[in-house]
Amino acid sequence: MQDLNEVVAALARRVEELEDERAIREVLCRYALSVDGDNAEAMAQLYAEDCTIDIDSVAFFNGRDDAKRIVTGEAHQSILPNCAHIMGPFSIVIDGKSAVATGYATIFVRKSGQVGVWRQAYGRWELIKRDDRWQILKRQSRTTGRPESLALLNAAV
Amino acid sequence: MQDLNEVVAALARRVEELEDERAIREVLCRYALSVDGDNAEAMAQLYAEDCTIDIDSVAFFNGRDDAKRIVTGEAHQSILPNCAHIMGPFSIVIDGKSAVATGYATIFVRKSGQVGVWRQAYGRWELIKRDDRWQILKRQSRTTGRPESLALLNAAV
Amino acid sequence: MQDLNEVVAALARRVEELEDERAIREVLCRYALSVDGDNAEAMAQLYAEDCTIDIDSVAFFNGRDDAKRIVTGEAHQSILPNCAHIMGPFSIVIDGKSAVATGYATIFVRKSGQVGVWRQAYGRWELIKRDDRWQILKRQSRTTGRPESLALLNAAV
Repeated sequence: MQDLNEVVAALARRVEELEDERAIREVLCRYALSVDGDNAEAMAQLYAEDCTIDIDSVAFFNGRDDAKRIVTGEAHQSILPNCAHIMGPFSIVIDGKSAVATGYATIFVRKSGQVGVWRQAYGRWELIKRDDRWQILKRQSRTTGRPESLALLNAAV
Repeated sequence: MQDLNEVVAALARRVEELEDERAIREVLCRYALSVDGDNAEAMAQLYAEDCTIDIDSVAFFNGRDDAKRIVTGEAHQSILPNCAHIMGPFSIVIDGKSAVATGYATIFVRKSGQVGVWRQAYGRWELIKRDDRWQILKRQSRTTGRPESLALLNAAV
Repeated sequence: MQDLNEVVAALARRVEELEDERAIREVLCRYALSVDGDNAEAMAQLYAEDCTIDIDSVAFFNGRDDAKRIVTGEAHQSILPNCAHIMGPFSIVIDGKSAVATGYATIFVRKSGQVGVWRQAYGRWELIKRDDRWQILKRQSRTTGRPESLALLNAAV
C-alpha cells in the first residue's frame, strides 16, 4: 500500500512538471498576444512584481509598472496594429519553482501592405512560480547579428 | 483505499487535459501540413462536419465539403508548391470537450527563388472533442494591420 | 488492489509518452540553438551515432562526426552570427522508442541590417530513444518550391 502511494506521488510530480511546461509556453504566447493586442495591463501581469528586463543592454525595465512601457512606448505604438510577435520555439528547463526558457522572437510588421521582419532576437526568460502562477522574473533579449549574442544560446545547449 | 482511488482519478483527468492540449496542437499543425501538401481531403477531416470558417469577414466556408475549397481554390493553388503555413504559437484553453486556440498564422511563399510573407493573420480556433477526436468547429482569421483585429487577441489574454 | 496497480501503470505509460513528446520538442529546439550558437559539438550530440542526414538529395551527412560539418561548413559559417533557425511547428507521432516529427524549418538571416528568409524547408525527423535520451536517427530536409517535396508532408497527415 505504501508502495503504491509513493508511485502515485511520484507520478503526480511528473504530471505537475508537464503542467508547468505547458503553463510556461502559455505565458510566453500570451506575452505576444497582449503586446500585439495593445494590452499593457495584461502584459504586465505576466511579469513578476520585481521583474527585470534587459533589451540589448540598452533598454531596461524594472518592475511590473515600468514594463508597461514596452507596450505604451513610442516604438511599439508605431507598429500597431501591424505587428505580430512570433515567439519561439523555446527550450524550457524547469527546476522546481524556477525555469529558464531560451529561444527566439521574430517580430513581423506590415508596411504598405507588405509584411517583413522588424526585429529578430534570441531571448532568455527566467520564470518563477509564485502564488501558483508562472511569472517572468528576468528577461534578456539579444538582437541577432552580434557575436556576443551567441553566449545566450550556448548557455542552453 | 477510497482516497487513493480518488487521487488516481484526479491525476487521470489532469493527464487527459495534457493529452488534449497535445492533440489540439497536433490538429493545428496538421492543418498546415495538409494545405501545404495540397491535400484537401486530409485537411477537411480536421474540421467538424458542421464547421464554420470566416476569413476577414469576406470569405466564408460552411461544413467539411465546403472547407475543401480552402485548398482547391484558385488563391491556394497559385502558391503551391511554394508555400509554408507556419502556424502558431497558440494559447490553448480547454474546458472539458471544448477548447479555444488563439494565435498566429504566417504564410510564406517562394517567388523567383525568394521567400517572403504572403499573408499574416491572427486566428481564433474553436475546437470540439467528438468521437474521441479534436475537430475544428469554428475558425476566425483576421489579417494583421486592422485595428478591429486586436479584439480577437484581447479575448485570449 | 490489482486493479488500481494496473490503472496506475497505464497512467504512467501515458505520462511517459507526454514526457517523450516534450523531450522531442526540446531536441528539435536545441538543434536550432546549437547551430545558431556555432556549437557543432552540442549539435552533434543531438544526433545518434549512426545518423543519416539528407538535404535536398544533394548534401548528405552520415554519423555524428560528419554531421558537425552542418555547423562548421562554409555555408553555415557565412551566416553566423546573423542567423535564426526557426524550427516548427512539428507533428510528432511516437511509437514506443521510435518517433517521427514532420514540420518546418525557416532560416532567417540578417544582411545589411535587414532580416529575410535565407532558406525554408519541410523536414522529416526520425528519432530513437537510446540510453534514455531521444536522438535524431534520420533526417530529410526538402526545400519548398518543388512538387516532389509535398510527399514528405502527405506522409504525416
